[in-house]
Amino acid sequence: MTRIRFQQSLDDLKGKLLVMAGMAEQQIQRAVEAYRVRDLSICALVDHSELAINRMEREIDQAALDLLAMEQPMAIDLRFILAVIKINSDVERVGDAAKSISDRVRSMDTMAAADLPVDIPRMASLASNMVRRSLQAFIEADADLARTVLSMDDAVDGMNRAAHTALASLMAAESHRAPQALTALMVCRSLERVADHATNIAEDVIFWVKGADVRHQGDLEA
Amino acid sequence: MTRIRFQQSLDDLKGKLLVMAGMAEQQIQRAVEAYRVRDLSICALVDHSELAINRMEREIDQAALDLLAMEQPMAIDLRFILAVIKINSDVERVGDAAKSISDRVRSMDTMAAADLPVDIPRMASLASNMVRRSLQAFIEADADLARTVLSMDDAVDGMNRAAHTALASLMAAESHRAPQALTALMVCRSLERVADHATNIAEDVIFWVKGADVRHQGDLEA
Repeated sequence: MTRIRFQQSLDDLKGKLLVMAGMAEQQIQRAVEAYRVRDLSICALVDHSELAINRMEREIDQAALDLLAMEQPMAIDLRFILAVIKINSDVERVGDAAKSISDRVRSMDTMAAADLPVDIPRMASLASNMVRRSLQAFIEADADLARTVLSMDDAVDGMNRAAHTALASLMAAESHRAPQALTALMVCRSLERVADHATNIAEDVIFWVKGADVRHQGDLEA
Repeated sequence: MTRIRFQQSLDDLKGKLLVMAGMAEQQIQRAVEAYRVRDLSICALVDHSELAINRMEREIDQAALDLLAMEQPMAIDLRFILAVIKINSDVERVGDAAKSISDRVRSMDTMAAADLPVDIPRMASLASNMVRRSLQAFIEADADLARTVLSMDDAVDGMNRAAHTALASLMAAESHRAPQALTALMVCRSLERVADHATNIAEDVIFWVKGADVRHQGDLEA
């Protein structure tokens, strides 16, 4: 394989990953919309696309492995391919989180509507934003942009903790709204996981661009 | 590097991963013991070991990357190193799950003891068993053993679903036990995640041994 064709293969790999990431981000939006309007037909769409994302994960892993096996790339290309393998796994798990939310929506079918002290669309928008921004950092090889994702994660964690506290109190105080509150709480947890995966992606981007491992950096100061 | 020294480096890598996996498995046992007896001193131990696991994850990733960069391994060795990178990430997340359980135990501090319709130690034992078995499959390069982990995952999923149903009903019926039931439900979710990570590890072992990608195999039939 010539250098030009090798570069082309790396670009193809990146392109496939971006398509898959776009699908995963859309899955989150769909699942939260299904939750908001209680529409099971959107759930069916989420389930269907989940299968497509799983297939893409396999294809991307295989393509990355083929490049490693056939080309024996050095240094920066090697780190790029490893970043793709790791990001691939996190993107697929964003899809899993959407599926979890969609499963919750199905379980709400018999529950009455209830006003709850939590703004799930807002939390979803922040988490989706993190996924989008981490991927943008990947496209542009922008470690500074990736770092902004790490600080957004604290905001989502804070929202999740606040939601947990408010919903747990509600459950204890008003048992007739307990099932709805529990469902909302589970959806928040899934969104917090989405934010965690976006954080992992951002860390992988920084690792790829800078060659430094920023994961668990807080630990180093401990 | 001679072939013998290269083989030695691969064995070192495997050895480090096994030490880390043993720690992660122990973390789950400790966290569930902390839950069972409500002992915050065990929580402190879990937090401390979590930092050690995070450090080991970084070291293993770096060692794997160094081997890929310097040795340009082919075929079977390449797949082994990639399996190590993937398993490493799942083992670290088993440690994260233990930390989540430990955080829950801290939040129980002000709650009265309550009898709950869920056997968390049993679920924890099954999930730990899956982690141990998936790593044993890795040591022995035993794809058949790894496959048994995949079927155990269904059992844990079933236990988690049953726990969810029982605890959600309890929350709606008896609000004075709602906080304890919610905590138990969150611990079950964390254990279900442990089982998912063990499943991922088992799939990576099969991928390494057989060269076949068994992930999302159910999807192929869909």
